[in-house]
Amino acid sequence: MLEKINLAEKLSKFSDHWSPKIAGNYNGNDIMLVKVLGEFVWHKHDDTDDFFLVLEGELTIETEHGNIILGPGELYVVPKGVMHRPIAHVETSLLLIEPGGTPNTGDPETAVEKTQV
Amino acid sequence: MLEKINLAEKLSKFSDHWSPKIAGNYNGNDIMLVKVLGEFVWHKHDDTDDFFLVLEGELTIETEHGNIILGPGELYVVPKGVMHRPIAHVETSLLLIEPGGTPNTGDPETAVEKTQV
Repeated sequence: MLEKINLAEKLSKFSDHWSPKIAGNYNGNDIMLVKVLGEFVWHKHDDTDDFFLVLEGELTIETEHGNIILGPGELYVVPKGVMHRPIAHVETSLLLIEPGGTPNTGDPETAVEKTQV
Repeated sequence: MLEKINLAEKLSKFSDHWSPKIAGNYNGNDIMLVKVLGEFVWHKHDDTDDFFLVLEGELTIETEHGNIILGPGELYVVPKGVMHRPIAHVETSLLLIEPGGTPNTGDPETAVEKTQV
């Protein structure tokens, strides 16, 4: 119960891309760390907003309404139902928050399995 | 809709302590920034976990089960129902996430009103 989450220490434990790792839980939401590089797929989540906080690097989030560019210490919440595609031109580390069980691609068929870190 | 949240820029806009400012929303949760210094009150939230991420400074969270000390880039989620008291010996900036309307002291009678930043 009294274990804190050191984000840098957790990030040092993995190196794969686009594979979110669960670091903690908040009211049934997964608190996740992920490293990304390159383009993800266009997708949306009909039932949940999508929380992105950049820890290192730079993330572009293309959306159907325009693009957002996030650097370290910047966050953006993609509203539910909005089509979006994350892109990272350099390796980028993110803190994500999503309800437990949310498929990262918006589709259980193509989603990666989330593991603990 | 396409407005990102730069945490440092938002933090530069206020200087009061123990007065959370709402910077964004995630699925009905307030994403808040707060500056703290000194001791808060012992309290608990029966219906929600309490998310703390330290951005600058150092936060001690005393709990009924023991204490946690968080530096920058470290987070802890106080489980719902657990008595706790945040203490900061130096001015400390935090990112907090709580369901909208959650009283910061656990009690609507003593809670501060949350404003936007």
